[in-house]
Amino acid sequence: MLLNASPDLPAQLRDNDILHPDNNGPARNNPIAAVIISGGDIDCITGLLTLREGHAFRLYAQDFVMSVLNANQVFSVMNGDLVAREILPPASPVTLHDASGQELGLRVEAFPVPGKIPLYQEEGRDLSALVSAESVIGLSVTDDAGKTLLFIPGCAHVTPEILERAKNAEIVFFDGTLWQDREMIDAGLSQKTGARMGHISVSGECGTIAAFSALMRTRKIFIHINNTNPILCDDSEEAKKVRDSGWDVAYDGMEVTL
Amino acid sequence: MLLNASPDLPAQLRDNDILHPDNNGPARNNPIAAVIISGGDIDCITGLLTLREGHAFRLYAQDFVMSVLNANQVFSVMNGDLVAREILPPASPVTLHDASGQELGLRVEAFPVPGKIPLYQEEGRDLSALVSAESVIGLSVTDDAGKTLLFIPGCAHVTPEILERAKNAEIVFFDGTLWQDREMIDAGLSQKTGARMGHISVSGECGTIAAFSALMRTRKIFIHINNTNPILCDDSEEAKKVRDSGWDVAYDGMEVTL
Repeated sequence: MLLNASPDLPAQLRDNDILHPDNNGPARNNPIAAVIISGGDIDCITGLLTLREGHAFRLYAQDFVMSVLNANQVFSVMNGDLVAREILPPASPVTLHDASGQELGLRVEAFPVPGKIPLYQEEGRDLSALVSAESVIGLSVTDDAGKTLLFIPGCAHVTPEILERAKNAEIVFFDGTLWQDREMIDAGLSQKTGARMGHISVSGECGTIAAFSALMRTRKIFIHINNTNPILCDDSEEAKKVRDSGWDVAYDGMEVTL
Repeated sequence: MLLNASPDLPAQLRDNDILHPDNNGPARNNPIAAVIISGGDIDCITGLLTLREGHAFRLYAQDFVMSVLNANQVFSVMNGDLVAREILPPASPVTLHDASGQELGLRVEAFPVPGKIPLYQEEGRDLSALVSAESVIGLSVTDDAGKTLLFIPGCAHVTPEILERAKNAEIVFFDGTLWQDREMIDAGLSQKTGARMGHISVSGECGTIAAFSALMRTRKIFIHINNTNPILCDDSEEAKKVRDSGWDVAYDGMEVTL
């Protein structure tokens, strides 16, 4: 999640250049003031390697994710003189700052959601039960006006706490990985169910649409969508069901206003 | 450098999906049979993290680059059962194979070019002289018909050896980072010259166009172009000079046939 302190500036990054640690002048500045990492999976952390080198920002991540970043030397491409690394504590709201300590007018809270540990850390671990709380989080971001967005890219099921948070949020970005639990297996692509991967399905009696059906006011947007999920095809029956249920499907370049 | 064993298939990767280590069936196969890493810089190695997880290929890299990959746990996302890691020896041609050991009909040779060590490894190192030979390489890829392409994304100056190799190649992809040595400084973006960064300039008496001026038969393509380099603007004087000198400027989606 990239946080833009100057919403009137485009958040888009030019990424075709050679980047330098001593390059942080206005000619190449960008509006990203803070980055919050939502997990330890490759798709959560790899983007850090393609941010502009030499850009100053504050990086927030859970303790175990920060340990991964610290233990993998490639991430030292984020110059320690410019990028402040700050642990995101569990279940405790944090006032966000930029690298120089200036407040951004936003608070973020990391809250536990059911899920699993990153794939590359599975080896030798007991996976008979889903690992929860400590490793998989959702993010709640609140501005000075008290408006809140939830960012939950991976989630194994919707708990009462998540539902309560969503009722009080303006926008919910939510795990839309799979349409149904055996989707990957049925397509011959994997031996894993959605549950094994730590992902609730969009459809079904225990699915996301059903779980959030009482939320009429909150804007609901599916993110983190697998390419087997038919909701990616605008003209599919499934996409129609999603829309009819009051959900949007996120797309590249989508902009939302809190 | 991604090597495609089946040139009739598109080499493009779908990258919007969740990827799984047990997923290597034909439904999601892609034609990448081997990957050769040309250096240890972030822009050389980060792409490995966005390849399809669970795709089998053979990975070739220099000794020190393989050590970086081995020392950074995030790269274990390339499942060891599927991705064979093979050291690319210096100055010794290697017959390329896919993950299962099948020959690809291509040979590659890594040869030293003048350059510098990766940025994130600079700390505490003596940079008064450019580090050459061991760390910075060009790649020479030859097919069964004896046709050769050179891939030299970073190079501090054109040596007689490079020139000789280029004369015998069909295609040369070459470092086009900067138009002139002080470009980054003049733009107020960096305190570093091109020389300090290990990059020859395109223009000038000692530049790349001048160095390769005798090569009329070989197709010459600039790659690795910084966004300060005016050759990126098709209608610039500099782009015209490049074209008039017999060079092409690479672009996203460019395809070449050896």
